[in-house]
Amino acid sequence: VREIIALARKEQVDSVLAVGGGSVIDSGKAIAAGVYLDDIWKAVTGEEGITKALPIYTVLTLSATGSEMNGNAVITNSETMSKLGFGSPLLYPVFTIIDPTVQASLPFRQTVSGALDATAHILEYYFAEEDAIATNAINTALLKTIMDMTDRLQEDAADMVARANLAWCATLALNGISGVGHQGGDWACHTIEHAFSALKPQIAHGEGLGVIFPAWIEYMNQKMPGRFSGWAKDVWGEDNVSLALHKFREKISAWGAPTSLRELGLQSEDLPTLLEIITASGTLGGFSKLESADIEALLMLAY
Amino acid sequence: VREIIALARKEQVDSVLAVGGGSVIDSGKAIAAGVYLDDIWKAVTGEEGITKALPIYTVLTLSATGSEMNGNAVITNSETMSKLGFGSPLLYPVFTIIDPTVQASLPFRQTVSGALDATAHILEYYFAEEDAIATNAINTALLKTIMDMTDRLQEDAADMVARANLAWCATLALNGISGVGHQGGDWACHTIEHAFSALKPQIAHGEGLGVIFPAWIEYMNQKMPGRFSGWAKDVWGEDNVSLALHKFREKISAWGAPTSLRELGLQSEDLPTLLEIITASGTLGGFSKLESADIEALLMLAY
Repeated sequence: VREIIALARKEQVDSVLAVGGGSVIDSGKAIAAGVYLDDIWKAVTGEEGITKALPIYTVLTLSATGSEMNGNAVITNSETMSKLGFGSPLLYPVFTIIDPTVQASLPFRQTVSGALDATAHILEYYFAEEDAIATNAINTALLKTIMDMTDRLQEDAADMVARANLAWCATLALNGISGVGHQGGDWACHTIEHAFSALKPQIAHGEGLGVIFPAWIEYMNQKMPGRFSGWAKDVWGEDNVSLALHKFREKISAWGAPTSLRELGLQSEDLPTLLEIITASGTLGGFSKLESADIEALLMLAY
Repeated sequence: VREIIALARKEQVDSVLAVGGGSVIDSGKAIAAGVYLDDIWKAVTGEEGITKALPIYTVLTLSATGSEMNGNAVITNSETMSKLGFGSPLLYPVFTIIDPTVQASLPFRQTVSGALDATAHILEYYFAEEDAIATNAINTALLKTIMDMTDRLQEDAADMVARANLAWCATLALNGISGVGHQGGDWACHTIEHAFSALKPQIAHGEGLGVIFPAWIEYMNQKMPGRFSGWAKDVWGEDNVSLALHKFREKISAWGAPTSLRELGLQSEDLPTLLEIITASGTLGGFSKLESADIEALLMLAY
């Protein structure tokens, strides 16, 4: 990213066209802001503010992050193994093209990663405020549609109706709609997952989320009984959260995605390193704070 | 509206603050565009284009039309008894304040009118495209939430959680979200209802829609069998459209709103005048065209 920023400055480019998935768009956002900054990583740490950015245009080849319709981005600093986010309204794409036929050739594994990422975005908000009734009715609709469309794409990767509807759900999962009334949501699972893929870049973000989110719900359900029953009932038709979680993990498995850190390719000796990376950014979670001991327990549960 | 436009020109006002419901906001939009036009009605008929408008700010005292989050407006020409719409991205409010406590003192009848208007906005899109799966999952969620929140407000007008969630649903019903993938929707029922309230201004727009929409579904279900079964099943839990319609009308009745033209205060001798007003704007309907004979049959069915 720093090299491209230097090149963009030298060539005096006047806009950024990002063609790809979330990482490409996020890198595009880093470049758009970076040409006006001393160092883009300082925008992540808060040392430099984003006050100017090149206009960004995006063409989406993979529906997952929702980065095409918000002003946020996540980048990795390979020196510090940190994968952290930044954002500005100036980084909101001017336009985005989402053409389902372009996504038709995606391997199913990538489709699932995208579906799990979008699912996790919705879940980061879902449990924050129980009074966000309309938003959660929409979130339930999105979660179920994401599942139905992913099932259809497992049957037929060229099902354009399923592809288009999945793409639209993924965009809505993080363009603001899914978070209305949720006070910013939680985002502990995202921070935890970023440590997985910072440590092992071959781990797909969505697959990491598919491992950590069910574990987080399992762990939190003991601390906040009742909080997860609406999700269990509306999304899974279960009065019992454990049964809903079982169905959730079964669905992830049926799509061929991992449901444990072990299956993700992480070893037990990686856990202390993960814990170190995760706790480096302080206490986690928006509405439900996780201390170091919570994260350790959570990693064990996910292992 | 013309008088206020003249006054606004004379006083050289630089912005419009609309405090009220849909009619007030729509009048505000007419004023905002009108100060730069020869005559605002010419924008409705298409003789004059809107190329400039004052900035509009809105405070919503009644959630119904969704006018607070779009660039459209409907006004009545009392000389011609025409109630017609116009719009421009320039008429999109700069900001909108929706405070549920401000709406706490609304009579239940007004709350129901708003709920029925929002319901009708969603239904105008709902049946247009069967492939709009994600959008209709959201629409189903909105329709059910609108009903649940209205039921709660019938019990307790000061239920602020219900008021806030109803308000948000009403905004989402016409800010674009509910229409994604629906090619503009149908809007025949809206045009027909505008004739009711143009002829008898005491008829609340929402109450008129509560009469005409079930009749339209009943009529169209004969012409397009199968098209309405998704709505019947997802919103009403019925495999049979007639049973779903029965529940729909029962719900409207339970809220104390009319379910026939007669109950709206229209007489059989009004029907020819209504037909004349309605057909004056040509063929009706976006995806399903209604000829004069269809509208006549529909009015009889609604009578």
